[in-house]
Amino acid sequence: MDHKILLSESDIPKKWYNIAADLPTPMLPPLTADGTPISPESLAPVFPMNLIEQEVSTERWIDIPEEVLDILYRWRPAPLRRATYLEKYLDTPAKIYYKDESVSPPGSHKPNTSVPQAWYNKQFGIERMTTETGAGQWGSALSFACSLVGIECRVFMVRISFDQKPFRKIMMQIWGGNCVASPSTETAAGRQVLDANPDTPGSLGIAISEAIEAAVSDQSGKTRYGLGSVLNHVMLHQSIIGLEAKKQLEMVGEGLPDVVIGCAGGGSNFAGLAFPFTQDKINGADIEIIPVEPTACPTLTKGPFSYDYGDIACMTPLMPMHSLGHSFIPEPIHAGGLRYHGMSPLVCQCVVEGLHTPQALDQMECYESALLWARTEGSICAPETSHAIAAAIREAKKAKEEGKEKTIIFTYSGHGLMDMTGYDAYLSGKLSEYHLPDEEIARAEECLKNHPQAEQRKTGKW
Amino acid sequence: MDHKILLSESDIPKKWYNIAADLPTPMLPPLTADGTPISPESLAPVFPMNLIEQEVSTERWIDIPEEVLDILYRWRPAPLRRATYLEKYLDTPAKIYYKDESVSPPGSHKPNTSVPQAWYNKQFGIERMTTETGAGQWGSALSFACSLVGIECRVFMVRISFDQKPFRKIMMQIWGGNCVASPSTETAAGRQVLDANPDTPGSLGIAISEAIEAAVSDQSGKTRYGLGSVLNHVMLHQSIIGLEAKKQLEMVGEGLPDVVIGCAGGGSNFAGLAFPFTQDKINGADIEIIPVEPTACPTLTKGPFSYDYGDIACMTPLMPMHSLGHSFIPEPIHAGGLRYHGMSPLVCQCVVEGLHTPQALDQMECYESALLWARTEGSICAPETSHAIAAAIREAKKAKEEGKEKTIIFTYSGHGLMDMTGYDAYLSGKLSEYHLPDEEIARAEECLKNHPQAEQRKTGKW
Repeated sequence: MDHKILLSESDIPKKWYNIAADLPTPMLPPLTADGTPISPESLAPVFPMNLIEQEVSTERWIDIPEEVLDILYRWRPAPLRRATYLEKYLDTPAKIYYKDESVSPPGSHKPNTSVPQAWYNKQFGIERMTTETGAGQWGSALSFACSLVGIECRVFMVRISFDQKPFRKIMMQIWGGNCVASPSTETAAGRQVLDANPDTPGSLGIAISEAIEAAVSDQSGKTRYGLGSVLNHVMLHQSIIGLEAKKQLEMVGEGLPDVVIGCAGGGSNFAGLAFPFTQDKINGADIEIIPVEPTACPTLTKGPFSYDYGDIACMTPLMPMHSLGHSFIPEPIHAGGLRYHGMSPLVCQCVVEGLHTPQALDQMECYESALLWARTEGSICAPETSHAIAAAIREAKKAKEEGKEKTIIFTYSGHGLMDMTGYDAYLSGKLSEYHLPDEEIARAEECLKNHPQAEQRKTGKW
Repeated sequence: MDHKILLSESDIPKKWYNIAADLPTPMLPPLTADGTPISPESLAPVFPMNLIEQEVSTERWIDIPEEVLDILYRWRPAPLRRATYLEKYLDTPAKIYYKDESVSPPGSHKPNTSVPQAWYNKQFGIERMTTETGAGQWGSALSFACSLVGIECRVFMVRISFDQKPFRKIMMQIWGGNCVASPSTETAAGRQVLDANPDTPGSLGIAISEAIEAAVSDQSGKTRYGLGSVLNHVMLHQSIIGLEAKKQLEMVGEGLPDVVIGCAGGGSNFAGLAFPFTQDKINGADIEIIPVEPTACPTLTKGPFSYDYGDIACMTPLMPMHSLGHSFIPEPIHAGGLRYHGMSPLVCQCVVEGLHTPQALDQMECYESALLWARTEGSICAPETSHAIAAAIREAKKAKEEGKEKTIIFTYSGHGLMDMTGYDAYLSGKLSEYHLPDEEIARAEECLKNHPQAEQRKTGKW
């Protein structure tokens, strides 16, 4: 059997899968600060209405526009690969498959949503998108998409990353993206921070505030904001990962997998693979579905399920999700994409329902797994992806102990070619184990206690 | 038609193609400094005998060992892609195909030879390979290969790159490679340079001297040296590129292409694609075959065809090739892989025979083409690769002018994700056109005039 299982373009999924149609309990609505459900119209200054419709949709299948597919064909369908070299090394009876999302030009799964976001914005008459970015993964994916769709892209990049990690900024510029260090003088929010502290390193919270302000304050009405994870329409767009993977498993005569794994920061690459299989689980299939997070940011495994803001500045609606508190500042672990205090409400709902069983892994085990991966399978993974690999290795070892021929599948969410500093820190012995102390969980509970409690609302006890 | 033309693993070529069997004029031998042909045995302290046999072989087809294929399957067969988005932008009747060698874990075509080199060394009982590297592309490819084959790898990396471009060094370490800054205290050659100039930035010439010394001076006899381009056995291993591409063109009903293009530094990625088609040209097919080099280092277009050393320290045999003189120091253009004074003798022979028609392009046109590529096809190419893209764009425009539906194919030799500083320099207006001045060509002729003259030998006028 080939190591690569390849779909032809004619077999690419033509519809996205929306798990909101199948959840046993309907989703709770996002709320304003006073506890009122948000209306779609109130989001209109931030997002175009066609994406807001997807955000609130409960249709099970939503057509992928032909023009979007024509852009995705640059790298999709993505290969499903079998990690036979790792299997052999582990001497496991398990079969390990991975969906390789690192093959997109920006190097991760992010363009699966940046492309439709840019396309729907253009369809709606929008001429410019704004966004924020930390290390630059999402900013480069949106610049890429806007370039191919033909609209402008303005990225507010956290200043310390802008200065210290210039490579992703240059990627954005190659794709015509306009990347500015945040805080900037372009927004009131940025100027306010700069007045108080001209030497601030910036933060993702400030960058979000600037990006939203830059969108809503454009008097022409031709600018909107784009978000790379967490929201329902992002999970929808990412479902192409799992829909392709299902077809590919069928091609090699596999039924449904026994274990589905993805690393989870905001939840989108995990959900992309997991949701189409979660549908089978809702319908009775026996599948273990595991979102993996770092022990330094254990949102799903330790964070309370409550209503919380998506950003530190409380500019977003309150969303029903597991959270470490919107003011939580995680340790600077190198898997930057997993350092988010909250999580996709759809993923959280699946955890609450018992459909997903989260795990938290330490960065030392993850880097060790990444090195084993590079020296068996050959490729260098993103630090985020190493969490999925480490969990897959755990499951493969368990299968060996149990003597079971399990089928494991995970998302290889991105390559690590822009993440050498993290590897360097690990290889030179500068990293150590880090588990979030219990006091921090207590602090999160304290932070959330005045917010509406999602769990209670869900169970009617509110 | 799909944008990606994919071969299954069962269709991978099982033999390499050796153009030495088909050249109209037999190759001239490498010589010692006094003009005596080198014997295979004299190379034995440097290379294992099984690779020396390939180096001097005139067999047309040489079996690829099963174990080598099993490693290559990690990324091969490589996709052939059609650049439909660029074609549309150029509004050309030409069809532009490109063989995507950027999909290997180290990100270029280099592992096509580093893997068999490491494998043949291990077969011969060798336990450690040494090599030199400039910016790190070859050093990382050999570290990768040694890791998968299971032998040690020691890389002497030019100090200024070691200090200023640490990312490739970290890649080597991820694959277990032992990378030291050159000049080092580990060799007599290195110590001599350091004694004279402790702050030297190093050079590729010094690093080659150290790597060869480290191989031949190991008293156990278990160490050999590996070279990433120029030599015949490297061209042999790279022929898998063109052999796959031929099958892929057949799959989509194309006959032979009209134009074959590759960028040429030492010649290996170009030859990998070009030699299998050169065989057809020798047999009468009408194909234009174009090696593309920078105007800053115009080896094939302006360098005399003579005998010259492969390195600045004159440690290699004299090889029959076009050369800008072994002491030539090119301008620091960002396509580091194209800054070599010499060229594969096999490629040079094809140029002398009129089978290949070299072009030299300026870096400004190449970066402009790379940006157009990123904004149409989507991916970010290596600065070296941009030379092939620029030449393909020229040919596609010519086809439009002539109203001819030509088929163009080129090697996409590597991605540019580790080359952001070059793009940054271009985007911020710090680069300019550079053509090697005529005085430099005169200097090369002066440098070469005391060497045996290859052209004369070839024509019997020596």
